[in-house]
Amino acid sequence: MRDFSEDTSALALNTATLGHNLDGYGAGWPLERVIDTCASHGFGGIVFWRREIGTNAIEIGNRVRAAGMHVTGLCRTPYLVGSGRPDAWFDETRGSIDMAAALGTTVLTVVTGGTEPETKGTIETKKVLAERLARVSDYAAAGGVRLALEPLNPMYGGNRTCLMTVRDALNVCEMVGHDALGIAVDVYHVWWDSNLKESCKAAGSRIIGYHLCDWLENTSDMLLDRGMMGDGVADLKAIRDAVESAGYAGACEVEIFSSDRWWKARPDRVLRTIADRFKTVC
Amino acid sequence: MRDFSEDTSALALNTATLGHNLDGYGAGWPLERVIDTCASHGFGGIVFWRREIGTNAIEIGNRVRAAGMHVTGLCRTPYLVGSGRPDAWFDETRGSIDMAAALGTTVLTVVTGGTEPETKGTIETKKVLAERLARVSDYAAAGGVRLALEPLNPMYGGNRTCLMTVRDALNVCEMVGHDALGIAVDVYHVWWDSNLKESCKAAGSRIIGYHLCDWLENTSDMLLDRGMMGDGVADLKAIRDAVESAGYAGACEVEIFSSDRWWKARPDRVLRTIADRFKTVC
Repeated sequence: MRDFSEDTSALALNTATLGHNLDGYGAGWPLERVIDTCASHGFGGIVFWRREIGTNAIEIGNRVRAAGMHVTGLCRTPYLVGSGRPDAWFDETRGSIDMAAALGTTVLTVVTGGTEPETKGTIETKKVLAERLARVSDYAAAGGVRLALEPLNPMYGGNRTCLMTVRDALNVCEMVGHDALGIAVDVYHVWWDSNLKESCKAAGSRIIGYHLCDWLENTSDMLLDRGMMGDGVADLKAIRDAVESAGYAGACEVEIFSSDRWWKARPDRVLRTIADRFKTVC
Repeated sequence: MRDFSEDTSALALNTATLGHNLDGYGAGWPLERVIDTCASHGFGGIVFWRREIGTNAIEIGNRVRAAGMHVTGLCRTPYLVGSGRPDAWFDETRGSIDMAAALGTTVLTVVTGGTEPETKGTIETKKVLAERLARVSDYAAAGGVRLALEPLNPMYGGNRTCLMTVRDALNVCEMVGHDALGIAVDVYHVWWDSNLKESCKAAGSRIIGYHLCDWLENTSDMLLDRGMMGDGVADLKAIRDAVESAGYAGACEVEIFSSDRWWKARPDRVLRTIADRFKTVC
Protein backbone atom coordinates (compact mmCIF):
# COMPACT_ATOMS: atom_id res chain seq x y z
CA MET A 1 0.00 0.00 0.00
CA ARG A 2 1.29 3.46 -0.84
CA ASP A 3 2.19 5.74 2.02
CA PHE A 4 -0.03 8.78 1.92
CA SER A 5 0.78 9.97 5.41
CA GLU A 6 1.86 13.29 3.93
CA ASP A 7 1.48 12.92 0.19
CA THR A 8 -1.93 13.85 -1.19
CA SER A 9 -0.85 13.91 -4.84
CA ALA A 10 -3.06 10.90 -5.62
CA LEU A 11 -6.05 12.68 -4.16
CA ALA A 12 -8.64 13.99 -6.59
CA LEU A 13 -11.79 15.98 -6.04
CA ASN A 14 -15.00 15.05 -7.77
CA THR A 15 -16.70 18.42 -7.90
CA ALA A 16 -20.05 16.89 -6.90
CA THR A 17 -18.57 16.87 -3.40
CA LEU A 18 -18.99 20.64 -3.30
CA GLY A 19 -22.66 20.45 -4.09
CA HIS A 20 -22.71 21.16 -7.78
CA ASN A 21 -26.27 19.92 -7.78
CA LEU A 22 -27.27 23.07 -5.98
CA ASP A 23 -26.90 26.44 -7.66
CA GLY A 24 -23.18 26.83 -8.24
CA TYR A 25 -20.69 25.36 -5.77
CA GLY A 26 -21.27 25.34 -2.05
CA ALA A 27 -20.58 28.99 -1.43
CA GLY A 28 -21.01 30.28 -4.94
CA TRP A 29 -17.36 29.70 -5.78
CA PRO A 30 -16.41 29.94 -9.44
CA LEU A 31 -14.65 26.98 -11.02
CA GLU A 32 -11.27 28.73 -10.92
CA ARG A 33 -11.42 29.11 -7.16
CA VAL A 34 -12.29 25.42 -6.75
CA ILE A 35 -9.28 24.50 -8.88
CA ASP A 36 -6.88 26.76 -7.00
CA THR A 37 -8.10 25.70 -3.57
CA CYS A 38 -7.73 22.02 -4.49
CA ALA A 39 -4.17 22.74 -5.58
CA SER A 40 -3.44 24.62 -2.37
CA HIS A 41 -4.58 21.61 -0.32
CA GLY A 42 -2.26 19.33 -2.27
CA PHE A 43 -4.83 17.59 -4.44
CA GLY A 44 -3.32 16.06 -7.56
CA GLY A 45 -6.49 15.83 -9.62
CA ILE A 46 -9.99 17.00 -10.27
CA VAL A 47 -13.02 15.35 -11.86
CA PHE A 48 -15.76 17.38 -13.49
CA TRP A 49 -19.31 16.82 -14.60
CA ARG A 50 -20.31 17.63 -18.15
CA ARG A 51 -22.76 20.33 -17.13
CA GLU A 52 -19.87 22.36 -15.67
CA ILE A 53 -17.77 22.26 -18.79
CA GLY A 54 -19.98 23.59 -21.55
CA THR A 55 -17.80 24.51 -24.49
CA ASN A 56 -14.77 25.42 -22.38
CA ALA A 57 -13.20 21.98 -22.11
CA ILE A 58 -9.78 22.88 -23.50
CA GLU A 59 -9.51 26.04 -21.41
CA ILE A 60 -10.61 24.31 -18.22
CA GLY A 61 -8.20 21.44 -18.79
CA ASN A 62 -5.36 23.86 -19.29
CA ARG A 63 -6.41 25.82 -16.21
CA VAL A 64 -6.21 22.65 -14.11
CA ARG A 65 -2.78 21.77 -15.44
CA ALA A 66 -1.56 25.34 -14.92
CA ALA A 67 -2.47 24.86 -11.25
CA GLY A 68 -0.26 21.78 -11.14
CA MET A 69 -3.01 19.16 -11.26
CA HIS A 70 -4.51 16.69 -13.71
CA VAL A 71 -8.07 16.24 -14.91
CA THR A 72 -8.46 12.67 -13.70
CA GLY A 73 -11.95 12.01 -15.00
CA LEU A 74 -15.21 13.23 -16.44
CA CYS A 75 -18.72 12.32 -15.29
CA ARG A 76 -20.38 10.89 -17.38
CA THR A 77 -21.97 9.36 -20.46
CA PRO A 78 -25.75 9.39 -20.73
CA TYR A 79 -27.56 6.21 -19.73
CA LEU A 80 -26.98 3.59 -22.40
CA VAL A 81 -29.83 1.29 -21.38
CA GLY A 82 -33.11 1.43 -19.50
CA SER A 83 -36.10 3.68 -19.82
CA GLY A 84 -34.00 6.72 -18.91
CA ARG A 85 -31.74 6.32 -21.96
CA PRO A 86 -31.99 9.39 -24.21
CA ASP A 87 -32.89 8.81 -27.85
CA ALA A 88 -29.67 10.54 -28.80
CA TRP A 89 -27.54 8.33 -26.54
CA PHE A 90 -25.11 7.48 -29.34
CA ASP A 91 -24.32 11.06 -30.32
CA GLU A 92 -24.35 12.18 -26.70
CA THR A 93 -21.88 9.46 -25.76
CA ARG A 94 -19.56 10.45 -28.58
CA GLY A 95 -19.92 14.07 -27.49
CA SER A 96 -18.93 13.14 -23.94
CA ILE A 97 -15.91 11.27 -25.30
CA ASP A 98 -14.97 14.42 -27.24
CA MET A 99 -15.30 16.47 -24.08
CA ALA A 100 -13.12 14.08 -22.08
CA ALA A 101 -10.44 14.20 -24.76
CA ALA A 102 -10.62 17.98 -24.91
CA LEU A 103 -10.26 18.21 -21.14
CA GLY A 104 -7.21 16.03 -21.39
CA THR A 105 -8.50 13.18 -19.26
CA THR A 106 -8.31 9.50 -20.13
CA VAL A 107 -11.29 8.39 -18.03
CA LEU A 108 -14.97 8.88 -18.77
CA THR A 109 -17.38 7.36 -16.26
CA VAL A 110 -20.33 5.28 -17.41
CA VAL A 111 -23.41 4.83 -15.27
CA THR A 112 -25.29 2.35 -17.38
CA GLY A 113 -28.94 3.09 -16.71
CA GLY A 114 -31.47 0.55 -15.52
CA THR A 115 -33.44 -2.42 -16.73
CA GLU A 116 -34.49 -2.30 -20.38
CA PRO A 117 -38.21 -1.74 -21.00
CA GLU A 118 -40.23 -4.91 -21.48
CA THR A 119 -37.59 -7.00 -19.73
CA LYS A 120 -37.04 -8.26 -16.19
CA GLY A 121 -33.88 -8.57 -14.12
CA THR A 122 -30.55 -7.58 -15.63
CA ILE A 123 -29.43 -10.37 -17.98
CA GLU A 124 -31.10 -9.08 -21.14
CA THR A 125 -30.13 -5.52 -20.30
CA LYS A 126 -26.47 -6.44 -19.98
CA LYS A 127 -26.54 -7.94 -23.46
CA VAL A 128 -27.94 -4.71 -24.87
CA LEU A 129 -25.41 -2.72 -22.88
CA ALA A 130 -22.56 -4.76 -24.30
CA GLU A 131 -23.79 -4.14 -27.85
CA ARG A 132 -24.02 -0.41 -27.29
CA LEU A 133 -20.63 -0.18 -25.61
CA ALA A 134 -19.15 -2.02 -28.57
CA ARG A 135 -20.54 0.68 -30.84
CA VAL A 136 -18.69 3.48 -29.04
CA SER A 137 -15.48 1.77 -27.90
CA ASP A 138 -13.42 2.36 -31.03
CA TYR A 139 -14.33 6.02 -30.96
CA ALA A 140 -13.26 6.28 -27.33
CA ALA A 141 -9.98 4.52 -28.04
CA ALA A 142 -9.30 6.86 -30.97
CA GLY A 143 -9.67 9.78 -28.55
CA GLY A 144 -7.41 8.21 -25.95
CA VAL A 145 -10.35 7.84 -23.59
CA ARG A 146 -11.33 4.79 -21.60
CA LEU A 147 -14.89 4.16 -20.47
CA ALA A 148 -15.09 3.37 -16.75
CA LEU A 149 -18.13 1.19 -16.08
CA GLU A 150 -19.23 1.99 -12.57
CA PRO A 151 -21.14 -0.70 -10.71
CA LEU A 152 -23.67 0.93 -8.39
CA ASN A 153 -25.10 -0.15 -5.07
CA PRO A 154 -27.98 -2.56 -5.79
CA MET A 155 -30.43 0.00 -4.44
CA TYR A 156 -29.91 1.79 -7.77
CA GLY A 157 -31.08 -1.22 -9.74
CA GLY A 158 -34.19 -0.68 -11.84
CA ASN A 159 -33.68 2.87 -13.05
CA ARG A 160 -29.97 3.68 -12.76
CA THR A 161 -27.82 0.60 -13.24
CA CYS A 162 -27.68 -2.98 -14.43
CA LEU A 163 -24.24 -3.49 -12.88
CA MET A 164 -24.23 -4.06 -9.12
CA THR A 165 -20.76 -5.46 -8.51
CA VAL A 166 -17.23 -5.25 -9.85
CA ARG A 167 -17.78 -8.78 -11.13
CA ASP A 168 -20.85 -7.65 -13.08
CA ALA A 169 -18.85 -4.85 -14.68
CA LEU A 170 -15.97 -7.18 -15.49
CA ASN A 171 -18.35 -9.63 -17.13
CA VAL A 172 -19.63 -6.89 -19.43
CA CYS A 173 -16.05 -5.79 -20.23
CA GLU A 174 -15.30 -9.36 -21.22
CA MET A 175 -18.48 -9.66 -23.29
CA VAL A 176 -17.35 -6.67 -25.34
CA GLY A 177 -13.66 -7.54 -25.30
CA HIS A 178 -12.41 -4.03 -26.03
CA ASP A 179 -9.43 -2.41 -24.30
CA ALA A 180 -11.27 0.91 -24.08
CA LEU A 181 -13.50 -0.54 -21.37
CA GLY A 182 -12.56 -0.39 -17.72
CA ILE A 183 -14.15 -0.29 -14.28
CA ALA A 184 -14.56 2.37 -11.60
CA VAL A 185 -14.62 1.01 -8.05
CA ASP A 186 -16.58 3.27 -5.71
CA VAL A 187 -16.53 2.60 -1.98
CA TYR A 188 -20.14 3.70 -1.61
CA HIS A 189 -21.33 1.16 -4.10
CA VAL A 190 -19.20 -1.88 -3.33
CA TRP A 191 -18.17 -1.71 0.35
CA TRP A 192 -20.58 -4.49 1.28
CA ASP A 193 -19.40 -7.04 -1.33
CA SER A 194 -17.83 -10.12 0.24
CA ASN A 195 -16.23 -10.99 -3.10
CA LEU A 196 -14.70 -7.58 -3.69
CA LYS A 197 -11.07 -8.56 -3.29
CA GLU A 198 -11.39 -11.54 -5.62
CA SER A 199 -13.33 -9.50 -8.17
CA CYS A 200 -10.74 -6.71 -8.14
CA LYS A 201 -7.98 -9.24 -8.60
CA ALA A 202 -9.81 -10.68 -11.58
CA ALA A 203 -10.39 -7.19 -12.97
CA GLY A 204 -6.70 -6.25 -12.72
CA SER A 205 -5.80 -3.55 -15.20
CA ARG A 206 -9.47 -3.03 -16.04
CA ILE A 207 -9.69 -0.96 -12.85
CA ILE A 208 -9.26 2.63 -13.99
CA GLY A 209 -11.01 4.52 -11.23
CA TYR A 210 -11.25 4.44 -7.45
CA HIS A 211 -13.85 6.60 -5.68
CA LEU A 212 -13.80 7.45 -2.01
CA CYS A 213 -16.47 8.41 0.49
CA ASP A 214 -18.03 6.38 3.30
CA TRP A 215 -21.23 4.47 3.95
CA LEU A 216 -22.92 5.99 6.98
CA GLU A 217 -24.26 3.48 9.48
CA ASN A 218 -27.67 5.12 9.38
CA THR A 219 -27.95 6.17 5.76
CA SER A 220 -31.12 8.22 5.53
CA ASP A 221 -31.48 8.95 1.83
CA MET A 222 -30.95 6.86 -1.27
CA LEU A 223 -29.04 9.58 -3.10
CA LEU A 224 -27.70 12.42 -1.02
CA ASP A 225 -26.50 11.04 2.30
CA ARG A 226 -22.98 9.85 1.62
CA GLY A 227 -20.44 10.16 4.38
CA MET A 228 -16.98 11.68 4.68
CA MET A 229 -14.23 9.06 4.87
CA GLY A 230 -13.97 7.81 8.42
CA ASP A 231 -17.52 8.71 9.43
CA GLY A 232 -19.08 5.44 8.27
CA VAL A 233 -18.70 1.68 8.34
CA ALA A 234 -16.83 0.95 5.09
CA ASP A 235 -13.45 -0.70 5.57
CA LEU A 236 -11.63 1.91 3.52
CA LYS A 237 -8.16 0.49 4.00
CA ALA A 238 -9.22 -3.00 2.98
CA ILE A 239 -10.96 -1.69 -0.13
CA ARG A 240 -7.98 0.37 -1.18
CA ASP A 241 -5.77 -2.63 -0.60
CA ALA A 242 -8.06 -4.70 -2.85
CA VAL A 243 -7.86 -2.10 -5.60
CA GLU A 244 -4.14 -1.45 -5.35
CA SER A 245 -3.23 -5.12 -4.96
CA ALA A 246 -5.00 -5.60 -8.29
CA GLY A 247 -2.54 -3.13 -9.82
CA TYR A 248 -4.42 0.15 -9.68
CA ALA A 249 -2.10 3.13 -9.19
CA GLY A 250 -4.34 5.99 -10.29
CA ALA A 251 -6.18 8.74 -8.50
CA CYS A 252 -8.26 8.37 -5.35
CA GLU A 253 -11.28 10.44 -6.24
CA VAL A 254 -13.47 11.78 -3.47
CA GLU A 255 -17.14 11.92 -4.44
CA ILE A 256 -19.54 12.77 -1.62
CA PHE A 257 -23.18 13.59 -2.30
CA SER A 258 -24.29 15.04 1.03
CA SER A 259 -27.10 17.55 0.83
CA ASP A 260 -27.58 18.01 4.56
CA ARG A 261 -24.00 18.11 5.71
CA TRP A 262 -21.06 18.59 3.37
CA TRP A 263 -22.93 20.51 0.72
CA LYS A 264 -23.76 23.03 3.43
CA ALA A 265 -20.19 23.37 4.64
CA ARG A 266 -17.75 25.94 3.28
CA PRO A 267 -15.77 24.49 0.37
CA ASP A 268 -12.38 25.21 1.93
CA ARG A 269 -13.42 23.36 5.07
CA VAL A 270 -14.62 20.40 2.98
CA LEU A 271 -11.35 20.27 1.04
CA ARG A 272 -9.25 20.54 4.18
CA THR A 273 -11.26 17.76 5.83
CA ILE A 274 -10.83 15.54 2.79
CA ALA A 275 -7.07 16.03 2.76
CA ASP A 276 -6.85 15.34 6.50
CA ARG A 277 -8.98 12.21 6.31
CA PHE A 278 -7.09 10.96 3.29
CA LYS A 279 -3.88 11.06 5.29
CA THR A 280 -5.36 9.33 8.32
CA VAL A 281 -8.19 6.89 7.55
CA CYS A 282 -8.00 5.95 3.87
CA MET B 1 -41.59 -25.50 -11.48
CA ARG B 2 -44.85 -26.16 -9.71
CA ASP B 3 -48.04 -25.24 -11.52
CA PHE B 4 -49.85 -22.59 -9.55
CA SER B 5 -52.21 -21.58 -12.32
CA GLU B 6 -55.10 -22.32 -9.99
CA ASP B 7 -53.54 -23.60 -6.80
CA THR B 8 -52.69 -20.95 -4.25
CA SER B 9 -52.09 -23.35 -1.37
CA ALA B 10 -48.38 -22.49 -1.30
CA LEU B 11 -49.23 -18.80 -0.97
CA ALA B 12 -48.67 -17.21 2.43
CA LEU B 13 -49.37 -13.72 3.67
CA ASN B 14 -46.84 -11.84 5.71
CA THR B 15 -49.13 -9.57 7.69
CA ALA B 16 -46.79 -6.61 7.16
CA THR B 17 -48.35 -6.47 3.70
CA LEU B 18 -51.54 -5.14 5.26
CA GLY B 19 -49.75 -2.26 6.91
CA HIS B 20 -49.31 -3.53 10.43
CA ASN B 21 -46.82 -0.74 10.93
CA LEU B 22 -49.72 1.68 10.94
CA ASP B 23 -52.35 1.52 13.65
CA GLY B 24 -53.94 -1.90 13.24
CA TYR B 25 -54.32 -3.44 9.80
CA GLY B 26 -55.19 -1.40 6.76
CA ALA B 27 -58.86 -0.91 7.49
CA GLY B 28 -58.79 -1.64 11.19
CA TRP B 29 -59.41 -5.33 10.66
CA PRO B 30 -58.94 -7.60 13.63
CA LEU B 31 -56.55 -10.52 13.31
CA GLU B 32 -59.38 -13.02 12.96
CA ARG B 33 -60.74 -11.27 9.91
CA VAL B 34 -57.28 -11.26 8.29
CA ILE B 35 -57.00 -15.00 8.88
CA ASP B 36 -60.45 -15.78 7.50
CA THR B 37 -60.03 -13.58 4.44
CA CYS B 38 -56.69 -15.18 3.62
CA ALA B 39 -58.36 -18.57 3.84
CA SER B 40 -61.22 -17.44 1.62
CA HIS B 41 -58.73 -16.35 -1.05
CA GLY B 42 -57.07 -19.75 -0.98
CA PHE B 43 -53.92 -18.80 0.92
CA GLY B 44 -52.25 -21.76 2.56
CA GLY B 45 -50.25 -19.90 5.16
CA ILE B 46 -49.75 -16.79 7.22
CA VAL B 47 -46.69 -15.18 8.79
CA PHE B 48 -46.96 -12.95 11.83
CA TRP B 49 -44.78 -10.42 13.59
CA ARG B 50 -44.10 -10.79 17.27
CA ARG B 51 -45.83 -7.56 18.20
CA GLU B 52 -49.12 -8.99 16.94
CA ILE B 53 -48.95 -12.14 19.00
CA GLY B 54 -48.46 -10.99 22.57
CA THR B 55 -49.27 -13.89 24.87
CA ASN B 56 -51.81 -15.45 22.53
CA ALA B 57 -49.46 -17.58 20.44
CA ILE B 58 -51.16 -20.93 21.04
CA GLU B 59 -54.65 -19.54 20.45
CA ILE B 60 -53.62 -17.69 17.29
CA GLY B 61 -51.84 -20.74 15.90
CA ASN B 62 -54.92 -22.85 16.51
CA ARG B 63 -57.13 -20.19 14.95
CA VAL B 64 -55.03 -20.28 11.77
CA ARG B 65 -55.18 -24.06 11.58
CA ALA B 66 -58.93 -24.05 12.23
CA ALA B 67 -59.21 -21.84 9.13
CA GLY B 68 -57.39 -24.52 7.13
CA MET B 69 -54.01 -22.79 6.95
CA HIS B 70 -50.56 -23.09 8.50
CA VAL B 71 -48.45 -20.56 10.37
CA THR B 72 -45.54 -20.60 7.98
CA GLY B 73 -43.25 -18.23 9.83
CA LEU B 74 -42.66 -15.66 12.53
CA CYS B 75 -40.87 -12.32 12.18
CA ARG B 76 -38.37 -12.07 13.87
CA THR B 77 -35.53 -12.31 16.36
CA PRO B 78 -34.03 -9.09 17.69
CA TYR B 79 -30.85 -7.87 16.05
CA LEU B 80 -28.00 -10.11 17.13
CA VAL B 81 -25.19 -7.75 16.13
CA GLY B 82 -24.62 -4.07 15.49
CA SER B 83 -25.35 -1.01 17.55
CA GLY B 84 -29.10 -1.76 17.40
CA ARG B 85 -28.72 -5.08 19.23
CA PRO B 86 -30.65 -5.02 22.51
CA ASP B 87 -28.76 -5.85 25.69
CA ALA B 88 -31.23 -8.65 26.29
CA TRP B 89 -30.73 -10.14 22.82
CA PHE B 90 -30.12 -13.64 24.19
CA ASP B 91 -33.28 -13.85 26.28
CA GLU B 92 -35.29 -12.07 23.61
CA THR B 93 -34.12 -14.52 20.97
CA ARG B 94 -35.05 -17.47 23.16
CA GLY B 95 -38.42 -15.83 23.78
CA SER B 96 -39.01 -15.46 20.06
CA ILE B 97 -38.12 -19.13 19.59
CA ASP B 98 -40.67 -19.98 22.28
CA MET B 99 -43.26 -17.90 20.48
CA ALA B 100 -42.57 -19.59 17.15
CA ALA B 101 -42.92 -23.01 18.75
CA ALA B 102 -46.14 -21.99 20.49
CA LEU B 103 -47.56 -20.70 17.22
CA GLY B 104 -46.74 -24.03 15.64
CA THR B 105 -44.35 -22.72 13.01
CA THR B 106 -40.94 -24.15 12.19
CA VAL B 107 -39.45 -20.94 10.79
CA LEU B 108 -38.25 -17.88 12.68
CA THR B 109 -36.72 -15.13 10.58
CA VAL B 110 -33.44 -13.51 11.58
CA VAL B 111 -32.50 -10.03 10.44
CA THR B 112 -29.00 -9.85 11.79
CA GLY B 113 -28.45 -6.18 12.56
CA GLY B 114 -25.60 -4.10 11.20
CA THR B 115 -21.90 -3.59 11.62
CA GLU B 116 -20.55 -4.13 15.13
CA PRO B 117 -19.47 -0.99 16.98
CA GLU B 118 -15.77 -0.16 16.67
CA THR B 119 -15.43 -2.30 13.54
CA LYS B 120 -15.57 -1.64 9.80
CA GLY B 121 -17.07 -3.65 6.98
CA THR B 122 -18.79 -6.95 7.73
CA ILE B 123 -16.10 -9.57 8.30
CA GLU B 124 -15.68 -9.09 12.04
CA THR B 125 -19.41 -8.72 12.49
CA LYS B 126 -20.09 -12.03 10.77
CA LYS B 127 -17.75 -13.77 13.19
CA VAL B 128 -19.63 -12.30 16.14
CA LEU B 129 -22.92 -13.23 14.51
CA ALA B 130 -21.81 -16.82 14.08
CA GLU B 131 -20.84 -17.05 17.75
CA ARG B 132 -24.20 -15.68 18.86
CA LEU B 133 -26.18 -17.93 16.53
CA ALA B 134 -24.26 -20.90 17.91
CA ARG B 135 -25.44 -19.94 21.39
CA VAL B 136 -29.13 -20.15 20.44
CA SER B 137 -29.18 -22.91 17.82
CA ASP B 138 -29.58 -25.86 20.19
CA TYR B 139 -32.47 -24.12 21.89
CA ALA B 140 -34.15 -23.51 18.53
CA ALA B 141 -33.66 -27.13 17.49
CA ALA B 142 -35.12 -28.35 20.77
CA GLY B 143 -38.24 -26.32 20.00
CA GLY B 144 -38.49 -27.63 16.45
CA VAL B 145 -37.71 -24.17 15.10
CA ARG B 146 -35.21 -23.24 12.39
CA LEU B 147 -33.64 -19.80 12.20
CA ALA B 148 -33.96 -18.31 8.72
CA LEU B 149 -31.09 -15.90 8.12
CA GLU B 150 -32.38 -13.29 5.73
CA PRO B 151 -29.83 -11.51 3.57
CA LEU B 152 -30.97 -7.94 2.95
CA ASN B 153 -30.43 -5.59 0.06
CA PRO B 154 -27.02 -3.95 0.51
CA MET B 155 -28.74 -0.62 1.10
CA TYR B 156 -29.54 -2.00 4.56
CA GLY B 157 -25.89 -2.50 5.38
CA GLY B 158 -24.57 -0.51 8.31
CA ASN B 159 -27.52 -0.58 10.67
CA ARG B 160 -29.73 -3.52 9.69
CA THR B 161 -27.70 -6.36 8.22
CA CYS B 162 -24.27 -7.84 7.74
CA LEU B 163 -25.58 -10.38 5.19
CA MET B 164 -26.18 -8.98 1.71
CA THR B 165 -26.43 -12.13 -0.41
CA VAL B 166 -27.57 -15.72 -0.17
CA ARG B 167 -23.89 -16.63 -0.35
CA ASP B 168 -23.15 -14.44 2.68
CA ALA B 169 -25.91 -16.18 4.63
CA LEU B 170 -24.72 -19.61 3.55
CA ASN B 171 -21.20 -18.79 4.65
CA VAL B 172 -22.45 -17.94 8.14
CA CYS B 173 -24.54 -21.14 8.24
CA GLU B 174 -21.40 -23.08 7.43
CA MET B 175 -19.34 -21.19 10.01
CA VAL B 176 -21.80 -22.30 12.68
CA GLY B 177 -22.46 -25.74 11.22
CA HIS B 178 -25.80 -26.28 12.94
CA ASP B 179 -28.86 -27.79 11.24
CA ALA B 180 -31.13 -25.26 12.95
CA LEU B 181 -29.81 -22.55 10.65
CA GLY B 182 -31.33 -21.85 7.28
CA ILE B 183 -31.82 -19.01 4.82
CA ALA B 184 -34.77 -16.91 3.70
CA VAL B 185 -34.58 -15.75 0.08
CA ASP B 186 -36.49 -12.51 -0.46
CA VAL B 187 -37.01 -11.18 -3.97
CA TYR B 188 -36.70 -7.58 -2.81
CA HIS B 189 -33.30 -8.18 -1.32
CA VAL B 190 -31.67 -10.49 -3.87
CA TRP B 191 -33.27 -9.85 -7.27
CA TRP B 192 -30.17 -8.05 -8.54
CA ASP B 193 -27.64 -10.77 -7.65
CA SER B 194 -25.99 -12.26 -10.73
CA ASN B 195 -24.87 -15.25 -8.66
CA LEU B 196 -28.27 -16.00 -7.19
CA LYS B 197 -28.91 -19.27 -8.99
CA GLU B 198 -25.49 -20.68 -8.09
CA SER B 199 -25.81 -19.51 -4.49
CA CYS B 200 -29.25 -21.08 -4.12
CA LYS B 201 -27.95 -24.33 -5.56
CA ALA B 202 -25.12 -24.30 -3.03
CA ALA B 203 -27.57 -23.48 -0.24
CA GLY B 204 -29.87 -26.39 -1.13
CA SER B 205 -31.88 -27.53 1.87
CA ARG B 206 -30.70 -24.53 3.86
CA ILE B 207 -33.34 -22.53 2.01
CA ILE B 208 -36.32 -22.48 4.35
CA GLY B 209 -38.12 -19.35 3.23
CA TYR B 210 -39.06 -17.60 0.00
CA HIS B 211 -40.46 -14.08 0.10
CA LEU B 212 -42.30 -12.39 -2.74
CA CYS B 213 -42.84 -8.79 -3.74
CA ASP B 214 -41.28 -6.79 -6.57
CA TRP B 215 -38.56 -4.17 -6.99
CA LEU B 216 -40.13 -1.07 -8.49
CA GLU B 217 -38.14 0.51 -11.31
CA ASN B 218 -38.25 3.87 -9.55
CA THR B 219 -38.03 2.88 -5.92
CA SER B 220 -38.56 6.08 -3.97
CA ASP B 221 -38.00 5.07 -0.36
CA MET B 222 -35.47 2.83 1.33
CA LEU B 223 -38.05 1.07 3.48
CA LEU B 224 -41.66 1.44 2.45
CA ASP B 225 -41.86 1.40 -1.35
CA ARG B 226 -41.95 -2.27 -2.26
CA GLY B 227 -43.99 -3.30 -5.25
CA MET B 228 -46.73 -5.84 -5.90
CA MET B 229 -45.54 -8.82 -7.92
CA GLY B 230 -45.56 -7.90 -11.59
CA ASP B 231 -45.28 -4.15 -11.07
CA GLY B 232 -41.49 -4.06 -10.95
CA VAL B 233 -38.35 -5.29 -12.66
CA ALA B 234 -37.49 -8.43 -10.68
CA ASP B 235 -37.46 -11.62 -12.76
CA LEU B 236 -39.85 -13.43 -10.43
CA LYS B 237 -40.06 -16.64 -12.42
CA ALA B 238 -36.29 -16.98 -12.67
CA ILE B 239 -35.90 -16.38 -8.94
CA ARG B 240 -38.53 -18.94 -8.04
CA ASP B 241 -36.89 -21.38 -10.40
CA ALA B 242 -33.57 -20.79 -8.66
CA VAL B 243 -35.13 -21.45 -5.26
CA GLU B 244 -37.17 -24.46 -6.28
CA SER B 245 -34.41 -26.00 -8.39
CA ALA B 246 -32.37 -25.92 -5.20
CA GLY B 247 -35.01 -28.10 -3.55
CA TYR B 248 -37.23 -25.59 -1.80
CA ALA B 249 -40.86 -26.69 -1.67
CA GLY B 250 -42.23 -24.48 1.11
CA ALA B 251 -44.46 -21.45 1.20
CA CYS B 252 -44.25 -18.43 -1.08
CA GLU B 253 -44.65 -15.62 1.43
CA VAL B 254 -45.80 -12.22 0.21
CA GLU B 255 -44.24 -9.36 2.15
CA ILE B 256 -44.90 -5.89 0.76
CA PHE B 257 -44.04 -2.77 2.72
CA SER B 258 -45.84 -0.08 0.74
CA SER B 259 -46.93 2.93 2.75
CA ASP B 260 -48.25 4.99 -0.16
CA ARG B 261 -50.03 2.33 -2.14
CA TRP B 262 -50.87 -1.11 -0.76
CA TRP B 263 -51.08 -0.07 2.86
CA LYS B 264 -53.75 2.40 1.79
CA ALA B 265 -55.77 -0.17 -0.13
CA ARG B 266 -58.57 -2.25 1.38
CA PRO B 267 -57.20 -5.53 2.76
CA ASP B 268 -59.57 -7.68 0.72
CA ARG B 269 -58.45 -5.95 -2.46
CA VAL B 270 -54.80 -6.47 -1.51
CA LEU B 271 -55.36 -10.16 -0.83
CA ARG B 272 -57.30 -10.68 -4.06
CA THR B 273 -54.58 -8.91 -6.04
CA ILE B 274 -51.91 -11.07 -4.45
CA ALA B 275 -53.77 -14.27 -5.30
CA ASP B 276 -54.31 -13.10 -8.88
CA ARG B 277 -50.70 -12.08 -9.38
CA PHE B 278 -49.46 -15.28 -7.82
CA LYS B 279 -51.34 -17.26 -10.44
CA THR B 280 -50.13 -15.16 -13.34
CA VAL B 281 -46.69 -13.58 -12.86
CA CYS B 282 -44.88 -15.50 -10.11
